[in-house]
Amino acid sequence: MRRALDAAREAVDKALPNPRVGCVILDPAGTVVAVGAHRGAGTPHAEADALARAGDRARGATAVVTLEPCNHTGRTGACSEALIAAGVVRVVYAADDPNPVASGGADRLRAAGVDVEGGLLAGESERLNVAWTHAVRTGRPFVTWKFAATLDGRSAAADGSSQWITGPEARLDVQRLRAACDAILVGTGTVVADDPRLTLRDDENAPLPYAVQPTRVVMGERLVAADARVRDDDAPFLQLVTRDVDAALAALAEHEIRHVWLEGGPRLAGAFLAAGAVDEVVAYVAPTLLGAGATALSGTGIQTLADAVQLDVTDTTHVGPDLRITARPRPLAPTDEDRS
Amino acid sequence: MRRALDAAREAVDKALPNPRVGCVILDPAGTVVAVGAHRGAGTPHAEADALARAGDRARGATAVVTLEPCNHTGRTGACSEALIAAGVVRVVYAADDPNPVASGGADRLRAAGVDVEGGLLAGESERLNVAWTHAVRTGRPFVTWKFAATLDGRSAAADGSSQWITGPEARLDVQRLRAACDAILVGTGTVVADDPRLTLRDDENAPLPYAVQPTRVVMGERLVAADARVRDDDAPFLQLVTRDVDAALAALAEHEIRHVWLEGGPRLAGAFLAAGAVDEVVAYVAPTLLGAGATALSGTGIQTLADAVQLDVTDTTHVGPDLRITARPRPLAPTDEDRS
Ligand SMILES: NC(=O)c1ccc[n+]([C@@H]2O[C@H](COP(=O)([O-])OP(=O)(O)OC[C@H]3O[C@@H](n4cnc5c(N)ncnc54)[C@H](OP(=O)(O)O)[C@@H]3O)[C@@H](O)[C@H]2O)c1
Ligand SMILES: NC(=O)c1ccc[n+]([C@@H]2O[C@H](COP(=O)([O-])OP(=O)(O)OC[C@H]3O[C@@H](n4cnc5c(N)ncnc54)[C@H](OP(=O)(O)O)[C@@H]3O)[C@@H](O)[C@H]2O)c1
Repeated sequence: MRRALDAAREAVDKALPNPRVGCVILDPAGTVVAVGAHRGAGTPHAEADALARAGDRARGATAVVTLEPCNHTGRTGACSEALIAAGVVRVVYAADDPNPVASGGADRLRAAGVDVEGGLLAGESERLNVAWTHAVRTGRPFVTWKFAATLDGRSAAADGSSQWITGPEARLDVQRLRAACDAILVGTGTVVADDPRLTLRDDENAPLPYAVQPTRVVMGERLVAADARVRDDDAPFLQLVTRDVDAALAALAEHEIRHVWLEGGPRLAGAFLAAGAVDEVVAYVAPTLLGAGATALSGTGIQTLADAVQLDVTDTTHVGPDLRITARPRPLAPTDEDRS
Repeated sequence: MRRALDAAREAVDKALPNPRVGCVILDPAGTVVAVGAHRGAGTPHAEADALARAGDRARGATAVVTLEPCNHTGRTGACSEALIAAGVVRVVYAADDPNPVASGGADRLRAAGVDVEGGLLAGESERLNVAWTHAVRTGRPFVTWKFAATLDGRSAAADGSSQWITGPEARLDVQRLRAACDAILVGTGTVVADDPRLTLRDDENAPLPYAVQPTRVVMGERLVAADARVRDDDAPFLQLVTRDVDAALAALAEHEIRHVWLEGGPRLAGAFLAAGAVDEVVAYVAPTLLGAGATALSGTGIQTLADAVQLDVTDTTHVGPDLRITARPRPLAPTDEDRS
């Protein structure tokens, strides 16, 4: 299973809107005869990839897969059927498939007489696909809110200058984390103020070697100008003409977006937090002080300290001179209305 | 020397306005015959303490001291003379005495025929007395600015509530660090708004077991009311009726204050930063988000990002659920005026 997890991890940085999956085929003597992995939408599933490599040697073999084999015929055939047809006699998998459309693979295999065991290193498989698992379970994309600020909490100086709060190492780190998402989201306010590109590129504006540019999504009722840079040809563009966070999440899910990288601005971030729609916070804190300028967050509607959003910090890492703090918001406390 | 450094460290948490010093006496065979340390103003110097314990065995002995023996007769006699009178033949010390009034001990000892060696583990001795060394060298106290804020940089919520931004572990940590200083400084604005006590005590307002309460200092032109809590009998009180940072530092130095714990508010902190008078920043960052409320720093006069105060982070530590970031401001960039 470790070999299969490694295969999933090494094959591709993201397979969204699909999960990252690896598969190892072992002959009856326990020798590895093939290793396969999924590389993203439109490419074979990990099982199909491994079976193709194994050929005849799959007959009588064991398949070790990091996710319950799918039971539904999409762009590729159902993996449960493919394993049966190839003559695999035993399947060991890690995580159950949380996708109601695709699950049932284990049952189908058992019905065909295959020996099936699930749950081995399931946690590791889920960690490989945190956003995808969340999105498939809840029907809403996983939202990571990123911001950069000085140690005294400023995201820009008094004159509006904000390039660059953080150092080059942190900015490259942002590109890496952006690349793991399938959408980058900002409010219309940010587009009007900054006319950002929202593509993956380096400081000299050269494109970075990531296969798939995330979709650039702008949210708000003001229509984005036709000549805005966010509408150029470098990556897909989508405007959500709404201020309703739930409606926006539903629309993103319909576009098969599983992991949203929310870059602000402060008001859109505030609206998402207030709606309980932020699943992860990534804060880059620079070792500088300003004493004036815009803050990273506004419009949460929080009046008093007792109502502050509580976070569980999951990681603190130095990135060049800056500090990256990753945290998960705790579920919002029930309001008086909820209680009554 | 390690033994002498340990003695200095273990004897007392702070000896301000004096340095922490340890002394070990060794007989000619190299056997330790006495260990002494300084315990604060009005108590014997480390050398005198060790010599008293050694008695006759000091004759022909070596004294190992963490600081160059003093050469000036204050509340206690000059240590150089005491070592000579006791018949010590060799002195090994760590750091040179940066105090112009007290230095010259090594020369005096050599003139009396004592074998003297300085500089052994000098850095460690100076680290034991960072604030004191700075204060004696510059004639101004060492200033530590402390603040507490949420991850989005708020020191209070929209309704003004700020108890408590950080958890009990961080608040106890603050008391410990406060205790290492000899003054706690705030602006009149904080006194008017919060009527704080500024004494060392626990969450139930019980006094903590620290020998010496720092002096409570309030800075600003509005006179502190006679019934303000900061004027109660629990600790010394001092008002500096000025807004001039340099004048305030000079007045504090005259009061023999070596290490100031600056607790704000935001405007006083801004004035100290702008004057280049903050030597250390201790920021407690809580894993919470507010989106509104006062920030920890204002009135620095910094307009643009290029003029931000740059910090070198010296330590990042988790304190309960909170993060403590310790940093040193880099010297301010020369202004155009300085350059011309
Ligand atoms: N340092 C950083 O990390 C960073 C990142 C991003 C932005 N910024 C700065 O943030 C500033 C822009 O601030 P901002 O707050 O105006 O930007 P914003 O949050 O990007 O945009 C706010 C706008 O989004 C629309 N919107 C859509 N849904 C909303 C909702 N649920 N609640 C509130 N608004 C919603 C509204 O416009 P409609 O009227 O069109 O509906 C609103 O005016 C710029 O100066 C930019 O430089 C900083
Ligand atoms: N969360 C925290 O860590 C924390 C800590 C402390 C305070 N606070 C909050 O801060 C708020 C008070 O803010 P504040 O900025 O008014 O407090 P402040 O900085 O304590 O006081 C400002 C006052 O200090 C005097 N002052 C003396 N020298 C000054 C100088 N060089 N520059 C500017 N002012 C000087 C001025 O009053 P005169 O007219 O008397 O000269 C000025 O109005 C309160 O709400 C308090 O709760 C929060």
